[in-house]
Amino acid sequence: MTRTPLSPTPRSTIKRGKKRAVADRAALDAVLDAGLICHLSVVIDGAPVVLPTGYGRDGNTLYLHGSTGALSLRHTLDTDICVAVTLVDGIVYARSVFHFSANYRSAVVHGRARLVESEEERMHGLKVLTEHMAPGSWQHSRLPSAKEMAKTQVIALPLDEAAVKIRTGGPGDEPEDIESDIAWAGVLPLTRHWGAPVPSEDLSPGWVDAPAHIRDRSASPA
Amino acid sequence: MTRTPLSPTPRSTIKRGKKRAVADRAALDAVLDAGLICHLSVVIDGAPVVLPTGYGRDGNTLYLHGSTGALSLRHTLDTDICVAVTLVDGIVYARSVFHFSANYRSAVVHGRARLVESEEERMHGLKVLTEHMAPGSWQHSRLPSAKEMAKTQVIALPLDEAAVKIRTGGPGDEPEDIESDIAWAGVLPLTRHWGAPVPSEDLSPGWVDAPAHIRDRSASPA
Repeated sequence: MTRTPLSPTPRSTIKRGKKRAVADRAALDAVLDAGLICHLSVVIDGAPVVLPTGYGRDGNTLYLHGSTGALSLRHTLDTDICVAVTLVDGIVYARSVFHFSANYRSAVVHGRARLVESEEERMHGLKVLTEHMAPGSWQHSRLPSAKEMAKTQVIALPLDEAAVKIRTGGPGDEPEDIESDIAWAGVLPLTRHWGAPVPSEDLSPGWVDAPAHIRDRSASPA
Repeated sequence: MTRTPLSPTPRSTIKRGKKRAVADRAALDAVLDAGLICHLSVVIDGAPVVLPTGYGRDGNTLYLHGSTGALSLRHTLDTDICVAVTLVDGIVYARSVFHFSANYRSAVVHGRARLVESEEERMHGLKVLTEHMAPGSWQHSRLPSAKEMAKTQVIALPLDEAAVKIRTGGPGDEPEDIESDIAWAGVLPLTRHWGAPVPSEDLSPGWVDAPAHIRDRSASPA
């Protein structure tokens, strides 16, 4: 995999909060791999539209998919798109309202996507997407039929132009507010957890115990 | 508060997954109030840009804020913007890869924002934002000074044009896959939790026990 340096273009150069910018390709991969969904933004009739959707990363490629009829996906080709993945890790309580903040990991990817055309890469893209959303499921579940593949579009966005911002730690209060000791200051961490698997109502009794790839996930933080 | 019906325009009419569309103004408010951050999308030089940011709702108004120097905020005025708030509630495991999905609550708001100009509403907008991110903090912490207010822009987006989608429940597998009993099917719920408050390193000993509005939040689901 080619590790390109981040922020090579004006629009992916972070102007605000530069101290939170991370110019490390590994950080981009880590944020993308830790996220669950992304927010995809496209321009439709001159106006921005942002929608949540699934994704998966393989090396330097971000795969997205959708129904062949999906309005937003038809607007992703031959034009610029933008994808954001954000994890909120906590709320930063400061002595002053002005310095309230959030701890977070954020990746914003800019670029042009290509429609994946070969059946082999289309299937690969869906595998990457499925394994991102539900690790272990590609082996466990029935793979897409030709009819299902015909209903599905897969697009590929290169990870060449991206910005990563990460904020950690406590508040950046003013010295006089620290001195005057007026309020509590610190971080309230936010974490995500998988609950116990809820079997489908029509699941046969033989499957009521979830298989290991689901049980193991349930026991770990999200 | 005026409760306008949802989806009054072509771009906020849900085309895909219509069965998940919720045409209920109360549902929009509930999703916006349950979310923590939003993704704001703007068009800059013809290309979409999406960024995570804080927000707060008061009645029919969504308040956003930023530094007066923020690139994205300068591009929010006199033009269309789009804001998405998404909560992922679980991963839906199906017998077939094609029917994998996520349970979620999603609100997408389209519109034109106005720059809030009066000092009174600017302060109100910041209160709404702060109380959304950290309930109880407006009373507890030092309020913005004139100098801090001068560095801050507040914008207001009306909630007149929005789409809400909510997915709940198990997978929509094909009858033949249910019959063949080939895989586990169900939902792995995803929940968010506040951790224990982490006091700032420079906090005085008198504040080491977090006040009630933070302790209480820490004990409840996010």
